[in-house]
Amino acid sequence: MHVFFEPESVAVIGASRKINKAGHVIFKNFADNKRRGVFKGELYPVNPKEEHILGFKCYPSLTEIPGKVDLIVIVVPAPIVPGIMREAAAKGVKAAVIITAGFSEIGNHELEKEVTEIAKKAGIRVLGPNCLGVYDSKTGVDMLFLPETKVLSTGDEMVATPRPIAGNISIVTQSGAFGASALDFLAGRQLGISKFVSFGNKCDVNEAEMLEYLLYDDRTHVILLYVEGIREGRKFMEAAKKVTRVKPVVALKTGRTSAGARAAASHTGSIAGTDQIYEAAFMQCGVIRARDMEEFFDIGKALAYQPPAKGNVIGIITDAGGPGIMAVDECESRGLNVKKFSDETIQKFEELKKEGKIPKFATNLNPVDLTGSATSEMFEIATKILLDDPEIDGIIILGLHHLPALMEDFIDRVANLVKKYEKPAVACDIGETEMAMYIRARFDKHGIPAYGSPEDAARAMHALVRYGNYLRKCGCFEEYMEAFYKRKGVK
Amino acid sequence: MHVFFEPESVAVIGASRKINKAGHVIFKNFADNKRRGVFKGELYPVNPKEEHILGFKCYPSLTEIPGKVDLIVIVVPAPIVPGIMREAAAKGVKAAVIITAGFSEIGNHELEKEVTEIAKKAGIRVLGPNCLGVYDSKTGVDMLFLPETKVLSTGDEMVATPRPIAGNISIVTQSGAFGASALDFLAGRQLGISKFVSFGNKCDVNEAEMLEYLLYDDRTHVILLYVEGIREGRKFMEAAKKVTRVKPVVALKTGRTSAGARAAASHTGSIAGTDQIYEAAFMQCGVIRARDMEEFFDIGKALAYQPPAKGNVIGIITDAGGPGIMAVDECESRGLNVKKFSDETIQKFEELKKEGKIPKFATNLNPVDLTGSATSEMFEIATKILLDDPEIDGIIILGLHHLPALMEDFIDRVANLVKKYEKPAVACDIGETEMAMYIRARFDKHGIPAYGSPEDAARAMHALVRYGNYLRKCGCFEEYMEAFYKRKGVK
Repeated sequence: MHVFFEPESVAVIGASRKINKAGHVIFKNFADNKRRGVFKGELYPVNPKEEHILGFKCYPSLTEIPGKVDLIVIVVPAPIVPGIMREAAAKGVKAAVIITAGFSEIGNHELEKEVTEIAKKAGIRVLGPNCLGVYDSKTGVDMLFLPETKVLSTGDEMVATPRPIAGNISIVTQSGAFGASALDFLAGRQLGISKFVSFGNKCDVNEAEMLEYLLYDDRTHVILLYVEGIREGRKFMEAAKKVTRVKPVVALKTGRTSAGARAAASHTGSIAGTDQIYEAAFMQCGVIRARDMEEFFDIGKALAYQPPAKGNVIGIITDAGGPGIMAVDECESRGLNVKKFSDETIQKFEELKKEGKIPKFATNLNPVDLTGSATSEMFEIATKILLDDPEIDGIIILGLHHLPALMEDFIDRVANLVKKYEKPAVACDIGETEMAMYIRARFDKHGIPAYGSPEDAARAMHALVRYGNYLRKCGCFEEYMEAFYKRKGVK
Repeated sequence: MHVFFEPESVAVIGASRKINKAGHVIFKNFADNKRRGVFKGELYPVNPKEEHILGFKCYPSLTEIPGKVDLIVIVVPAPIVPGIMREAAAKGVKAAVIITAGFSEIGNHELEKEVTEIAKKAGIRVLGPNCLGVYDSKTGVDMLFLPETKVLSTGDEMVATPRPIAGNISIVTQSGAFGASALDFLAGRQLGISKFVSFGNKCDVNEAEMLEYLLYDDRTHVILLYVEGIREGRKFMEAAKKVTRVKPVVALKTGRTSAGARAAASHTGSIAGTDQIYEAAFMQCGVIRARDMEEFFDIGKALAYQPPAKGNVIGIITDAGGPGIMAVDECESRGLNVKKFSDETIQKFEELKKEGKIPKFATNLNPVDLTGSATSEMFEIATKILLDDPEIDGIIILGLHHLPALMEDFIDRVANLVKKYEKPAVACDIGETEMAMYIRARFDKHGIPAYGSPEDAARAMHALVRYGNYLRKCGCFEEYMEAFYKRKGVK
């Protein structure tokens, strides 16, 4: 499996000099990354009609390449793929990514079967067909053939399919187009990824195997999985159970409704199955299911940045009453407990009021509302009190920047405290202009995931609670926490 | 009531030269808008300690102002507000906005009662106390005292509380801080507003009266209402019933859960009441309730841009299978009907396949999936077919820009068609980088509201269906449509 991500030698079958062709884009990705020193393997273009592509000697066929070839990326038309696979078998290729569409997804089951059988016999692992393939932010393997930029009719060039920064989220997706969207989303939100895998028709490698492989990938801390249907359910569950004890798996499973299932069937031929079965299966093997696309990414971010919660009691700090209530509502309707603070904690706030350190009329039952007079110091003190309260398992910090006295250093103060405890915290600032973006980015940089709405923050916290519950149930909470903080390099 | 929004003369009581004071920011807003020719009324600063503020002659007291004063904005400390109100009564002031906090929200019920009684006796209408007051994008009335920019410790200045562009959404909010966030959100998303009203403790003017006033405001096409509790329920319902027949009212009512209700009680002293009662009341009077903050804004945008739907059958066009399924799932789980297209419509798509005008393997049951080979022409043809299908009441267009052959002119083609029909359409492109933002903005400019996730687009369509249902039930659908298109200037 690692050949897909770290091949020592790659041949692009159907490499092209025509810039609009997938065979060009993919070969260029590899060539550019090789030139930059990111991709370290050997690289061979295969195309009988060309002598050179981007300065690389072009081979008329796979078998004529002098050196060994680990991995081939196939972008030639479907009907000639079986022939290529036979050559690959002869050449001793270990793995093949078939980007080409036109197989079972359009009813060409026979052709797909033929390819699968050649591969099986030769021991070649196959990703695809009908997929976007692999992107690895570290090794420079990049098969994304979608144009990185597009030129508008005005002549302006725009970023169209960006690559996110390197990080610790890996994406495994059945839908290639959704995968491309995910990259665009994560790039824009400054979320870093390790690996991206789109497996399309999954004639060989499927989600179960991919999960197991990612279990052993140190750079993957969280797995985001988009699926429309899972074929080998038992295998998937076995793999997922192993993985979720060590790293969180977040699933976006579409085809929830009967009309959605019908759409899924005509999209990838997936049998979506009864949604309750998936729901129960995910629950059982600790896969955290997201309700929609935004939650999918929001949860991924939360689990990548913060530890799971030890229980479901949430404390909320806010400088704005209304958004505080929104966070409470969303927490409670998701089954989290925003109960009144303990007498001891309430007493601590009362004393601060007497000392003039927080406003006399700050409410302090939960949420603690520092009111419009909130300052950085107040946020710091309040955060410390909630971190010290053993009854509270997670903290939501709503630091709306609009208030006059609140300076941006509240983020650093709060974050430095949070780092000293093993209690998860998430943050929110509302707004879509300069300062709101800055506040959220600064929280993110400190590893406190920040969201644009109180409800999104509450949903993120809900995921941290769900995952914590699961780990405790499995008896591997402590182990996870140890690994988590070791990875973060904090302890 | 119109004095709050279009006063002929305004006095700011507590105007200040100290730039950090609310009395300075508010006075400066008016002064700047007067200089720019936006605010056309007379302007008087009142402060016994100053002679001039920003070039305006300062008066030691309200009564010493020579001309008449329509509206006063009060930013002096709570204990001296009753004295100011007595002067206002003597001066013949028509309306007062009490920005000052420190009244019933912190238990000072007596003080608030005193102020309310003086006002009532003198016939002065009061907004507040404890509020952000009014912002009117046309008349230049701007009482927002939150700093428009903030200076970071690095010395960088950042936009902190922006003003949205002028438009047709009006915001009525009980929470000032949420109001500020809303302005920030709408500004960043390029959504235009007409009026913004924060009424805080609502000792006099409340949401019922404000709704009725906005009913007659031509520049307000949609009302976004944030409330934690409604005191005079019957009055509110009567007003809402009148308004919702003519323009949509979208409500974000927090305190849904018991913990949320407790938080609301300690925030604005609101008795949130049983949520089911609110739910039923909103339903009965045609107020469209949003489930969370993002939906609140998303729905507002949909209703501002598009007509309501005639029924609940939705057709979906996509170039990406996965996101298509997500849209179907969300539609169906909200009670919309994404049923299989009629035989006639399916036949039309089949013929296009034969003619090679859409890909042979495009699925066409609903969604119609144009696949990764989608072009602008295909989007145009598919949109026309769904617009022409009398069974379909609304269209969701998922135009993911990542695909190689899709050019941005598909937006213009689709939008020009949509404009010719009385059928609502909403759009989606996924991504948070350059081209995704551009695609959504271009749809928005054409009046087709665009969203960043398929589920958000489905929720927006759901609101258009809900509102259409309500209007039909009231027998005023046709009337609304006529007014809608008259406003748009299309017919």
